[in-house]
Amino acid sequence: MERVAVETRVLSKNEECAQANRQLFKERGVVAVNFMSAPGAGKTSVLEKTLPALKDDCEIAVIEGDLYTTLDADRMHSAGIPAYQITTGTCCHLDARMITRALDEFPLGDTRLLVIENVGNMVCPAEFDLGEDFRVMVYSAVEGAEKPQKYPLMFQTAGAILLNKIDLIPYAGVSLEELTANVRKVNPKAPVFPISCRTGEGIPPWTNWFRELVLGLQ
Amino acid sequence: MERVAVETRVLSKNEECAQANRQLFKERGVVAVNFMSAPGAGKTSVLEKTLPALKDDCEIAVIEGDLYTTLDADRMHSAGIPAYQITTGTCCHLDARMITRALDEFPLGDTRLLVIENVGNMVCPAEFDLGEDFRVMVYSAVEGAEKPQKYPLMFQTAGAILLNKIDLIPYAGVSLEELTANVRKVNPKAPVFPISCRTGEGIPPWTNWFRELVLGLQ
Repeated sequence: MERVAVETRVLSKNEECAQANRQLFKERGVVAVNFMSAPGAGKTSVLEKTLPALKDDCEIAVIEGDLYTTLDADRMHSAGIPAYQITTGTCCHLDARMITRALDEFPLGDTRLLVIENVGNMVCPAEFDLGEDFRVMVYSAVEGAEKPQKYPLMFQTAGAILLNKIDLIPYAGVSLEELTANVRKVNPKAPVFPISCRTGEGIPPWTNWFRELVLGLQ
Repeated sequence: MERVAVETRVLSKNEECAQANRQLFKERGVVAVNFMSAPGAGKTSVLEKTLPALKDDCEIAVIEGDLYTTLDADRMHSAGIPAYQITTGTCCHLDARMITRALDEFPLGDTRLLVIENVGNMVCPAEFDLGEDFRVMVYSAVEGAEKPQKYPLMFQTAGAILLNKIDLIPYAGVSLEELTANVRKVNPKAPVFPISCRTGEGIPPWTNWFRELVLGLQ
């Protein structure tokens, strides 16, 4: 009971902050997108493939959530994208207040697309609204076909679902059809993009769709 | 500050329960092992490969942690191992009190090896002592070579580390040498076993080692 009470209080405080973030994004004409996945599913690789396709259309900035390292922020800098690092320490997700604080030190300026790369975790990040306009979930297809049923919340709240590492599917004994059907059971609406960041397969349809989405929301 | 205070209180209550569990295991001559990993790294597959090798030596029982489904417990039942399901709902890890409660409904009886399969999450489960004697971490090698630096706690607290899915390494662009070196940087002591549950490669050295460990702890 105590756990539930504490959790409810934390989430309600988070919701206040998320609303303030959402208001700020709206006033500044910023589209905010929250990328979530388990560790190693390929969020950073997806961003490296996706963001160059939008660089000519709008100013982009990235907020990176990581427990300890700046590895992902370094990769964004290498790709020519301004990136701000939130080091969460033992905290397994980003919350709305962390984003509010980050924006104090990392002003939005002319940013039109703010990408937030969450901590790698298929459970907790999905519970915390950051004030984003849109969520993208990256799932590694080699993690198995049954995970949408086992970890439904992130799949359910995603506006788009990328099934990454499809180049490994022939070797991994996972059925893309079964995985896609299981995704559909928990989220019948979101578009599902099978991709491989390694081979580039499926990347153009995804980036085209994402570009249209971002420009349409602006 | 409030978050930190709440977290400290939760962890200290957990520690009390963990000590009580540890005492119970000691009195009953039970070895308790906590298996942890990110979603889809192969904990259940590892148990399916490992536990049959110990069935003739001692009574085994499994506690399965899962957010919603009984899929993993069903797999244990199919393997002839008694299994009790803890459904955690929105909670992203097992805590010591959940184990205490489970043991009320799932008595240890003649159990000599109690395996606890944690919720799939590379962050939070590592923070919660369950009273176990030993932790095993299962890592999917295709999640990348740099994750020990990004998510160190689980690697650091593991008594043995299994690098699963090594059959996929030739196709995934991950270096097993680099991954092993990165594991060693955060945990120089724990034995590291490269394995493939799919092909069976590396399973016998691991199961032999684990069998000796369990029998030696009894």
